[in-house]
Amino acid sequence: MNLIILTDDDQTADGHYRLSDHRAEHIRTVLKLSVGDNIEVGLVDGGAGSARIKSVEKNEIIVACETLVISPPPSPIVDIICALPRPQTLRKLLSTIATMGVRRLYLIRANRVEKSYFHSPLLTPHRYRRYLLEGLSQGKLTRMPQVHIHNRFRTFLEDDLPAYEKQESDSPLRLVADGDATILLSDQYDGAAGRLLLAFGPEGGWVPFEIEQFEKAGFCIIRLTRTVLRVETAVTAALAQIELLRLKSTAP
Amino acid sequence: MNLIILTDDDQTADGHYRLSDHRAEHIRTVLKLSVGDNIEVGLVDGGAGSARIKSVEKNEIIVACETLVISPPPSPIVDIICALPRPQTLRKLLSTIATMGVRRLYLIRANRVEKSYFHSPLLTPHRYRRYLLEGLSQGKLTRMPQVHIHNRFRTFLEDDLPAYEKQESDSPLRLVADGDATILLSDQYDGAAGRLLLAFGPEGGWVPFEIEQFEKAGFCIIRLTRTVLRVETAVTAALAQIELLRLKSTAP
Repeated sequence: MNLIILTDDDQTADGHYRLSDHRAEHIRTVLKLSVGDNIEVGLVDGGAGSARIKSVEKNEIIVACETLVISPPPSPIVDIICALPRPQTLRKLLSTIATMGVRRLYLIRANRVEKSYFHSPLLTPHRYRRYLLEGLSQGKLTRMPQVHIHNRFRTFLEDDLPAYEKQESDSPLRLVADGDATILLSDQYDGAAGRLLLAFGPEGGWVPFEIEQFEKAGFCIIRLTRTVLRVETAVTAALAQIELLRLKSTAP
Repeated sequence: MNLIILTDDDQTADGHYRLSDHRAEHIRTVLKLSVGDNIEVGLVDGGAGSARIKSVEKNEIIVACETLVISPPPSPIVDIICALPRPQTLRKLLSTIATMGVRRLYLIRANRVEKSYFHSPLLTPHRYRRYLLEGLSQGKLTRMPQVHIHNRFRTFLEDDLPAYEKQESDSPLRLVADGDATILLSDQYDGAAGRLLLAFGPEGGWVPFEIEQFEKAGFCIIRLTRTVLRVETAVTAALAQIELLRLKSTAP
């Protein structure tokens, strides 16, 4: 836990924050801090900075924000489309995208997605939010990724995605990862500013019809590595490659 | 399971392979194959190709290798040094390095490594091998990473690592990941052929003394991303960036 993330739900009537979960335990048992000490905190979709510990009870810690950088960091430039994975994988995925900085995650149906995955209790906001918070805390970020769930593949690509994109001022570079592709990320993307929209298939990959639909929607098919990666590994790999190309292009 | 990995332990007296674990279950229940069907197999540190199913019993499947590419793929060019992580993280790490292609993993002591981690039963070969096999199966690779465990930091860097390196014909590019660095992987590595040796710290990072020792041993300090990554994520990020730079440099 590199940054203690504070949410609106934690706020008390007098503007302090009350922590009574794993964050309080972390402050007490790992950081071993007590009243008067300072901790690094971040507000969801807000600034980050320092807070002072006002009280420590057995199950509860009260902190008061002190010097916060008021303006939240800029919104991440990557949106991700992912065929809904099994819950165990989704947990890792949520944490990873929050740690590495993703603006929006679209979880969609695909031919090789098991229908039962759409009934997972993890798909309710108060359940999946925990993994996003964990990821923000790890990455020292405060921008909470937005999660959208769409259980029809074609409707998503033909109607829903265009509706989301209509609200944007610019058009993203659209890429879909596929093991059979020969084009690399760096063939399509030079690290320039601007948004990216990346799609990742289910275990077993996209079926040919889906790849065709992506191409129709303006996506270019790329590969990330020579070996076949698990979804959460592929997402990490793509985000790491994007980060490298972006940092390289802005280096002095 | 993208490739069924066969090991010496599976071999029968007549040169067939007997599978009675999760691989047999995968063939029966996921691939839904039966006698006479072919499956993709790989031999540990050997070739990959096709095998025919000879018999299917409730708990046991016998397969016979048919067309195997005899020569095993070339040895990966990346070795990794990692401060021994908690067992839960180590399992993911083992699977990831096998999937993405790592030749050797050195698990070492560091100041911020909990001593108890060195007593984990996972550190015995018959326990950790399972996660390496899983990773190979996912990545469709057959080269089994070698794992070496060293529980003294300084002795490892000053004596053990030089002893390992003495047996090599070339010298690797040595890099250590650290969140405070400003140099990127691509500043040090252009994707050229030749080995790489990458070091990853514990949760909480290396202490200054350790960074000094790495520098003395010829390591350059780099950063991978702007955010602070978990160890298994950092390793994936580094391997993905190396893969991109290497593929880019060999692209026509």
